[in-house]
Amino acid sequence: MTTPILAASRRTRRTPFSARVEAAGVKGYTVYNHMLLATSFRSVEEDYWHLKRHVQVWDVGCERQVEIVGSDAARLVQSMTPRDLSKAQIGQCLYAPLIDEAALMINDPVILKLAPDRFWLSIADTDVELWAKGLAYAGKLQARITEPDVWPLAVQGPKADDLMARVLGDKVASIGYFRFATLAFKRHPLIVARTGWSRQGGFEIYLDDWALGEKLWDALMDAGDDLDVGPGCPNLIERIESGLLSFGNDVTRANNPLEAGLERFCHLNRAVDCMGRRALEEIAAKGPARRVRGIRFNAQAVPGCVLPWPVKAKRKPIGHVTSAAFSPQLKCGIAFALLDRDHWEAGLAVTIETPEGPRPGTVADLPLIPPGR
Amino acid sequence: MTTPILAASRRTRRTPFSARVEAAGVKGYTVYNHMLLATSFRSVEEDYWHLKRHVQVWDVGCERQVEIVGSDAARLVQSMTPRDLSKAQIGQCLYAPLIDEAALMINDPVILKLAPDRFWLSIADTDVELWAKGLAYAGKLQARITEPDVWPLAVQGPKADDLMARVLGDKVASIGYFRFATLAFKRHPLIVARTGWSRQGGFEIYLDDWALGEKLWDALMDAGDDLDVGPGCPNLIERIESGLLSFGNDVTRANNPLEAGLERFCHLNRAVDCMGRRALEEIAAKGPARRVRGIRFNAQAVPGCVLPWPVKAKRKPIGHVTSAAFSPQLKCGIAFALLDRDHWEAGLAVTIETPEGPRPGTVADLPLIPPGR
Repeated sequence: MTTPILAASRRTRRTPFSARVEAAGVKGYTVYNHMLLATSFRSVEEDYWHLKRHVQVWDVGCERQVEIVGSDAARLVQSMTPRDLSKAQIGQCLYAPLIDEAALMINDPVILKLAPDRFWLSIADTDVELWAKGLAYAGKLQARITEPDVWPLAVQGPKADDLMARVLGDKVASIGYFRFATLAFKRHPLIVARTGWSRQGGFEIYLDDWALGEKLWDALMDAGDDLDVGPGCPNLIERIESGLLSFGNDVTRANNPLEAGLERFCHLNRAVDCMGRRALEEIAAKGPARRVRGIRFNAQAVPGCVLPWPVKAKRKPIGHVTSAAFSPQLKCGIAFALLDRDHWEAGLAVTIETPEGPRPGTVADLPLIPPGR
Repeated sequence: MTTPILAASRRTRRTPFSARVEAAGVKGYTVYNHMLLATSFRSVEEDYWHLKRHVQVWDVGCERQVEIVGSDAARLVQSMTPRDLSKAQIGQCLYAPLIDEAALMINDPVILKLAPDRFWLSIADTDVELWAKGLAYAGKLQARITEPDVWPLAVQGPKADDLMARVLGDKVASIGYFRFATLAFKRHPLIVARTGWSRQGGFEIYLDDWALGEKLWDALMDAGDDLDVGPGCPNLIERIESGLLSFGNDVTRANNPLEAGLERFCHLNRAVDCMGRRALEEIAAKGPARRVRGIRFNAQAVPGCVLPWPVKAKRKPIGHVTSAAFSPQLKCGIAFALLDRDHWEAGLAVTIETPEGPRPGTVADLPLIPPGR
């Protein structure tokens, strides 16, 4: 089996932090929103333990912002998601599934409300800019849609509060969960949110000046020596344990948000004016036909899941695994699987057809490990 | 300097040919339209010589098709491009820049006209499906937009006609340049076009059945032993020599089609009803402020261009290089560069600031080497 390198070009865009990521010895890359994203530094398992015990700095510049601004901006953003945004406050971060007219998922961004008429959609890996531009242009809406020069840097792990306070001041502590504030770094104002793609606690810093990138990275690394700060990235093991679905992996354009278990972000009982509402109501009335669930299975080592693995119960196909890893904490294989109704109850015995042979497993509720454990 | 592997997951989608690509020893991958694309097998230079002398089979499954079908399909497709499609024929492949309301590039697909009300846009690396869907939904158009299960396989090189005839029959010879026909492989009808992302001649086969992927790959490899057939992929050196721009590398969302040198596909003298027309007319009236040009420069070896390299003339900045390679045929460095007006004439002496130091060079017309040489 070959392990091809990522052949970089301008099209797989670099971030203001890429030179530091490479100097830190990045071992794996992926491409996300046409931009580089690290996948491991030491090994996925070593990175995992470090993330759960210490604090890491993550180049998540690939979380591109789609800025929507104008007198119709609020209406446009609401039209894109079944989450009720009518009471959203400035300073709030709102995780929101975006759906099309058939209620199929387009993306699942965190929406930052910057002003009544100005939003950032911090997106997963599809070109939401083009989707929003198409809707605005053909719908003749007063909304300007751009991808601004903003590259998030995440600080994640149990010591994230300590490290952030040292670099950005004590005000960091007052930022509530899924809230953001504007703090100064070298007199430059930066949006800082208590968000991030792990369940170990932490922040995302929305850097908007390329020239400050390495200075910000270095300041965090220099200030955290005694905290054992290190480079990191979204971690496959931690995200599966914590129930963090990945758009493109566990949920795709073929799924609706109820299949993804996102019903708490679908406010069908309120007067939300969004596209796909009728389709979503029909799905909700019947109940989704399949759903993303957890699985624990017998394994000592788990290969990467690059094509869905069939899942069977009593020898009949009931769905497929979309992401899998070995959990050092649970000491077994863990996975996300899209499972058919009547076969997703916790405790059901299943067989996973991995590339290395069948493995016995059990359906489990998400998250597999509660936050912070 | 690290050379990170590409960490694969389901999100970086595989193709029906991926297992064969990996068995053939792919050395580099990139990600294109959320899908794997090989970048080298032996080395970029060895692949180059082989492509120019023999015939290669390329997994270009990442050239995703955006299917647009319905009574408003023709109107929608025309609204997306300044190329006049009014006389397009069924069976024709039309290279067409897609632009937004400001005449900035969205993508540069090859459009296949399958029927009066049915088109495939064989796209470069942006989510044109979302763009078209947004336009159709908000514009209340009768057009269904999907990404069908179609994965192109290219056969490129001077011996491509011979190889294709052996596998798909003599009718291959009658397919005109940028035309397609439906041919049978194992009784399964497949669209076959005389197109491809090299200037060495060849075809693209639009496979629409995953299960046939490895059979088609194997049939081509088995039939071409005496033709020295081998695995290949779009080749950086050949495409720069041949003047084949890459969207995302040499042309981006920040460029208009006149900057990209695509004026022959912008029919402003005809009654084309497309968005961005007024903006494009204004740019055409003034003339573009910058343009993609060729450069030849002194170098024995050329590193990859992952961030634009400044280009200077008489010590003043006049633009930047976006792709570069060493040309074994010209025995010098070759590059695409976006150069400012008044500094793009062929023969102008320039200096390129490469990561390995300044290099003297000369502006040149595209293509740097005529087709087939």
